Amino acid sequence: MEFSSKLLEKAVNEMAQLPGIGKRTALRLVLHLLRQPKEQALLLSEALKTVREEINFCKSCHNISDKTLCEICDNPMRNKSLICIVEDIRDVMAIESTGSFKGLYHVLGGKISPMDGIGPQDLNITTLIDKVKDGTVTELIFAMSPTMEGDTTNFYIYRQIQDYNIKTSTIARGIAAGNELEYADEITLGRSIIDRIPFEASLKS
Amino acid sequence: MEFSSKLLEKAVNEMAQLPGIGKRTALRLVLHLLRQPKEQALLLSEALKTVREEINFCKSCHNISDKTLCEICDNPMRNKSLICIVEDIRDVMAIESTGSFKGLYHVLGGKISPMDGIGPQDLNITTLIDKVKDGTVTELIFAMSPTMEGDTTNFYIYRQIQDYNIKTSTIARGIAAGNELEYADEITLGRSIIDRIPFEASLKS
Repeated sequence: MEFSSKLLEKAVNEMAQLPGIGKRTALRLVLHLLRQPKEQALLLSEALKTVREEINFCKSCHNISDKTLCEICDNPMRNKSLICIVEDIRDVMAIESTGSFKGLYHVLGGKISPMDGIGPQDLNITTLIDKVKDGTVTELIFAMSPTMEGDTTNFYIYRQIQDYNIKTSTIARGIAAGNELEYADEITLGRSIIDRIPFEASLKS
Repeated sequence: MEFSSKLLEKAVNEMAQLPGIGKRTALRLVLHLLRQPKEQALLLSEALKTVREEINFCKSCHNISDKTLCEICDNPMRNKSLICIVEDIRDVMAIESTGSFKGLYHVLGGKISPMDGIGPQDLNITTLIDKVKDGTVTELIFAMSPTMEGDTTNFYIYRQIQDYNIKTSTIARGIAAGNELEYADEITLGRSIIDRIPFEASLKS
């Protein structure tokens, strides 16, 4: 791609570093910004700078937070003995939006993935084990995505804490609401039969 | 979407103002920036700020340029009597990459589109008419996309300059290289037969 302006080229190249944004899309986005009032573009530039420079992570659960403790960890109404282990903040937001979880979270910040060079030491696992050791936790819920990396991460953590006397569980795997049975993969369908629940229980939600 | 951080929320909301970027994608992009080294995020922020604040447009063809005259208008080897009318800088880049045009461009900065509230006065049409009036131009090539708005824009400009003694042409419309004939729409296929060219001419490129 030949650019008529170095400034434009620089902005497009930086934008194209973002995941899923190719050079053409980057050019489209930058040209859009150029057509907007100057304040609009500066607001975006400023917001990106501020979020990167001033971002904080909750010292307890590692969720993104503006304060030392995030609102969830700081909420006296939440059950502090129940911890849900998730990959990143998006999972926290997704689970929070269901309104059905009243415990705390622990954000690992990724999953064990040797292919991407991510090992246990790159994740927030030590602080989780510490919470288990000091006895405040009675149940851990593994809520990683049901992928190879998610399962590996779950199992690694499970091995670390299995000698402590706490309950562990994983989120239920089965057929998603609204999905056609015939299109489900065999593993999911098989598990959904093994892990079947009493019909009366299914009427509750 | 509930955010645990106001800074994060602000960055995501600004990012989601970009065309084709929804809230979820914006969140993914901002979280990606947070995982990058601080310099990376600041480079993007700075590049967006600089491009918006310091961008210049060529005073002759309205293309984006770091100087008063863009490199194309400033190039003594280009044919100044032949002007190709395009919608925006992306079209200039696309045509330049073919290497088959040696004239100058005139960037309108959009197309006439009553639905979007864009009229002729919002485009760089006056400066184009001036170029025709002062006699330096001998041929205008209409190179807008072959859409309703593109055709309207072409026709509007054509009406303004038809009394001046200059040649006008539009880019050829026909079957794209590599496309199957059976999938072409009737209008394009019909035109490609009416506008057929001597077989010998087709061997040239």
